[in-house]
Parts: sequence; C-alpha cells; structure tokens
Amino acid sequence: MKQTSKKTACVLAIDIGGTNIKAGLVDRAGVIRHMLHRPSHAARGRKALLAVLAEVIATQTRRMPIVAVGCGSPGTINHATGMVTYMQAHIPGWTGTLLRQELERMAGVPATVDNDVNLVALGEHWKGAGRGARCQLSLALGTGLGGGLIVDGRIFHGAGGRATEFGHMIVRPGGEPCTCGNFGCVEQYAAPGAMARRAAYYLTLGIPSVLAHCTAISAADIIKHAATDHLCRQIFNDAIDGLALVIWNLLQALDPDVIVIGGGLVKAGPALLTPLRAALATYYSPPELAGRFTLKLSTLGDDAGILGAARMAWDWLEHA
Amino acid sequence: MKQTSKKTACVLAIDIGGTNIKAGLVDRAGVIRHMLHRPSHAARGRKALLAVLAEVIATQTRRMPIVAVGCGSPGTINHATGMVTYMQAHIPGWTGTLLRQELERMAGVPATVDNDVNLVALGEHWKGAGRGARCQLSLALGTGLGGGLIVDGRIFHGAGGRATEFGHMIVRPGGEPCTCGNFGCVEQYAAPGAMARRAAYYLTLGIPSVLAHCTAISAADIIKHAATDHLCRQIFNDAIDGLALVIWNLLQALDPDVIVIGGGLVKAGPALLTPLRAALATYYSPPELAGRFTLKLSTLGDDAGILGAARMAWDWLEHA
Repeated sequence: MKQTSKKTACVLAIDIGGTNIKAGLVDRAGVIRHMLHRPSHAARGRKALLAVLAEVIATQTRRMPIVAVGCGSPGTINHATGMVTYMQAHIPGWTGTLLRQELERMAGVPATVDNDVNLVALGEHWKGAGRGARCQLSLALGTGLGGGLIVDGRIFHGAGGRATEFGHMIVRPGGEPCTCGNFGCVEQYAAPGAMARRAAYYLTLGIPSVLAHCTAISAADIIKHAATDHLCRQIFNDAIDGLALVIWNLLQALDPDVIVIGGGLVKAGPALLTPLRAALATYYSPPELAGRFTLKLSTLGDDAGILGAARMAWDWLEHA
Repeated sequence: MKQTSKKTACVLAIDIGGTNIKAGLVDRAGVIRHMLHRPSHAARGRKALLAVLAEVIATQTRRMPIVAVGCGSPGTINHATGMVTYMQAHIPGWTGTLLRQELERMAGVPATVDNDVNLVALGEHWKGAGRGARCQLSLALGTGLGGGLIVDGRIFHGAGGRATEFGHMIVRPGGEPCTCGNFGCVEQYAAPGAMARRAAYYLTLGIPSVLAHCTAISAADIIKHAATDHLCRQIFNDAIDGLALVIWNLLQALDPDVIVIGGGLVKAGPALLTPLRAALATYYSPPELAGRFTLKLSTLGDDAGILGAARMAWDWLEHA
C-alpha cells in the first residue's frame, strides 16, 4: 500500500504498562515524532484504563493524522482476534477485553494488538540488538521474565497466542513457588523482583548479609555485592544458573542466531552478561555447533515496545 | 504449478534410516503407489550410502516418471542449502554431504531435503494425528528422542536448521551422561534405548529385578513390569517425569494445540499415554489455559517419514 508509506504518514504506537501508558507517533522509518506519557491507573481496572487510552488517542490524533494503531498490552493477547484472553490481577477486568475493537472505535482507523513483550522483541529486531537475525530469541528481565521470538521478521505466536512464556519454564522441579501455581519456574530465580524477594526472605531466616542494612533491596544491590557477600552470591548464582539452563534448552528447541536480553536488569551490563556467558560455556558444544548464536543486551531500552508496536502496525498495513 | 498436480504424477519420497532406506512413489493425494526397501549399510559410510540411493532412485524412476525428490536424513540438515551440516558417527563421512545436489544429479529432477524427524512430523500433520493443527509439537521416541514443530503447515527450522532437538533439553542438570557431551538430557531418560541401558546398568549394581532373567532388555519389558517391579518402576517413572517436564516447558515456549508422540515406544499405547497425561496433570494450569492442547499418539507408524518427505516435495513444487 504505497499511499500509506509517505514520509508524512504516522502510526500511533501504544505501550500499555502497569504504571504508565506510552503513545508515540511513529513514521515508516521508525522515527518517533511525538511521545506522550500518562499514568495508566491499571489497578483501577478496565474502564479507567480504556478512558486513559481514549484520552491518549484523542490527544495524539489532534497533533497528527494517523493511518493505524499498534498496541502492546500485558497478558495473553490473541493477535488474530484482538482479544485479551488472559490477564492476571494487575489490571482488574482486563481479561476478555476486545482491545483491537476498542482501539479502532476510539481512533477511527484499523488497529492491531499483541503482547507487550512480543512487541519489545519486534522493536529490537527492527531497530535494536536483533537487527538482521533470522531467529531472534528475546528474554525480558522485568517485573517477571517475559519472552518473545521473531522468526523471519515475524512474531511467533503458537496456536493460541500464548507462546514464548519462557518465564514459566521450570528449571527446578519442586523449587520456588510461582504466581502461576507451579514450583521452580525460572522467573522466580531470575526476575529482578524475585531476586529481591528471595533476599528479603533469606534475611528473615537470620542469614547474615550486607543487605541487612538496606531499607529496600533491589536486584542491582544483589548484583553489586555478589562477589563478596554470601547471600548475594547465592541468589545471583541461582539467577544466572536458571537463565543459562533455560537459554540452553531454548537453543536446542529453537536454534536462534541472536539472543537478546532486555528489561531493567540490563543496566547491570557486563556484570550480568559476563557470568551468563560463562554459565552457558559450561555446557558442552561440539565444535560444529560452537559460535552459532550471539548473546546481546537490548539497545533500545524503553523505546523497544513503542517501536515494536509501530512496526507491527506498518507490517499489518502493508501485508493485510 | 498445475501441470504437476495431475493424478498420474508422483514424487519420490526417500527416508534414510540407520538400518534401511525406504523409497516411495507418492501422488499428490498422499497415496503411496510403490514402496521399496533396501538395507542402508550406513556403517559403511557416505560412499556406500550414496550408491544405495542411486540404485533406489534408478529402480523407482524406471517404474514411473517422477517430478521431484523429497528426502529425509538423520543428522542436522540445512533445508535451504541442501547440506548435511552435522551427523554423529552413525554414518561415517555423512557430515558435509551436499545431499540435495547428489539426489538431483541421480534423479535428474529437483530435490528437497530435511531432517528425518522433521518429516515424520510433517507426515503426521498431513495424514496422521496432527491433521488440522495450527502448531503441532512432535516427539519421536526412537533410538534417541527426536522432535519436530509444524507451524501453519510448515516445518520450523530455526536459524540454522538445528531447531527442535528436544531430546537434548536438560531435565536433570548433572544427571545421566549424554552422547552430546552434556548431562541430564531428557533423551537419556525417555528414549527406549536409554531406558534399556539404564536398566542393564542398575542390574550390574545387583539391584534385584525380574529383568535379571531377560537375555536382552527392551523398553517394552520395562513398561510391562513397571507396576510390579521396583527397578522397572524407577526407570519408567524417570522417563515419564522427564518427558512431562520437557512437554510442560515446551507448552510455555511454543503453545502447541496438538502434541504427537511417535516412534517405536508408541506400541505401548495407553501404558505410555495414561501415565504421561497423569504426570502433565500434576502441573497447575489455571482454568483459562486448561484444555488448550491435545496429546496424541502418532497414527502413521513407519509411513510418516515417507509421507512427510512427499508432502515437502509437493509443497516445494507448488510454492518455489
């Protein structure tokens, strides 16, 4: 559709988060023309969240006409039907929302929706660490451990849109309890929030640690002291071991050429990447298979989700 | 290419195994018109195997003209380039063979090649247990534990053709040694050969078992006595637990709607399927996610690989 590819045309890319909603006007080249941030008031539930979306769309479309909306949301999103098929308690009432249809009603243009972490992965493939990858595996260490898989430039969805939930792959059967109801999911070892929670729990058992003096423990604190503090080392090693095992198993299952680690923990840089590479190197790779993937940190930071939503919208316009 | 879809036209579908080579003339409807079996003499190496292939192709093409060759081989096959990129010792010299090019030279028609287990999965999707699946996960319990993934009717290859090596996903870090060089791969618990090998090893330790009276232990013996014999129960439970954990983790990663279990162990029927379903049911599925996949045994048996190779050839003719 050449007529939508004019330099002046923009899509509206929306990233729904638990704390903030971001909405960017993005052109075909991936330039974010105008960005808007609003508190999402997610805890107030579905109706309040839809009202924020309506305001954001009205404000941005007054600034510039748009040709489509691309939107990422937490939860299980059925990309084909546009529905939020499952969302835990973070946004009350969000399960069952016909998100695509709501957005189209508000914006008056076609909309397309997907899971937020899938779009972070797509954004990194378009403009970030995954550029040129044939099969890009993404792991996002945020509130939980999210995932995405980009194959030949497209998001892998599985049969029902629930694929790439790598955080709920079990690395220690019978281990840490997980919000999903199972035990030993990698998310409960490697996500920053889980690391902090485990440290706080260990402290209640009286295990000595420099963290005893912290008012609020963060994963960054744990990584900082991992070399010298017994408790920090244990928790950090568990995180690295869990991540490495899941990545190794996904190498067998998916054969990615690029693995992108994203999310807040990326700020740790080499303090995360170096031990993770070392843990992966403890698995035996026959010479024929060595060097068949690269492990990278994400490069787009907070913009990845917006760029992924924009790319999805542009792709949809051009291939629908 | 309508001219190739005539009812009289056939492709030659070849399934290279460690023991036998099968070659079937298969029409567009999936009817196997003529089947040929030959000993593969794989242990004699590359040259001997290519000679058998040449004879098989000559014999079958005298019977009926063919429009293409589709061929499955063990090892890592780069579907795009047609090359065998990696093969363990079973076929000396096979690594590096330009298999597609060799077949084209012998047959004088276009050829297309893939990994044998990928083609078993495609065959089941075309004519067997995976019919109609959007995302079909296949596990083959044969000499090893092979895998395949069919997404929207196409084989999933990953970046370099080495995807779906589910047998080398690690379920017990530090566990049983594997031929791949790592420890605790699911193949070393769930593949029939591994089950028999573990039982023989346990017997050398003097663990009492009815198997002590067997001259050659098979996985079928182990399953038969699992309810009453201590050693058999342990080995069978390890197999089921390992399989269930890998399937659970792949459900998180890939969201398949159909899971097909194939290979020789399928003959055990409900004795395999019932405990495997029970083991999967021990994981907690929220109500929203229950019933989103079905677990089936393969229905095509030994023909799956031939039908998959034929389907690949027909698809290639029609979409190339």
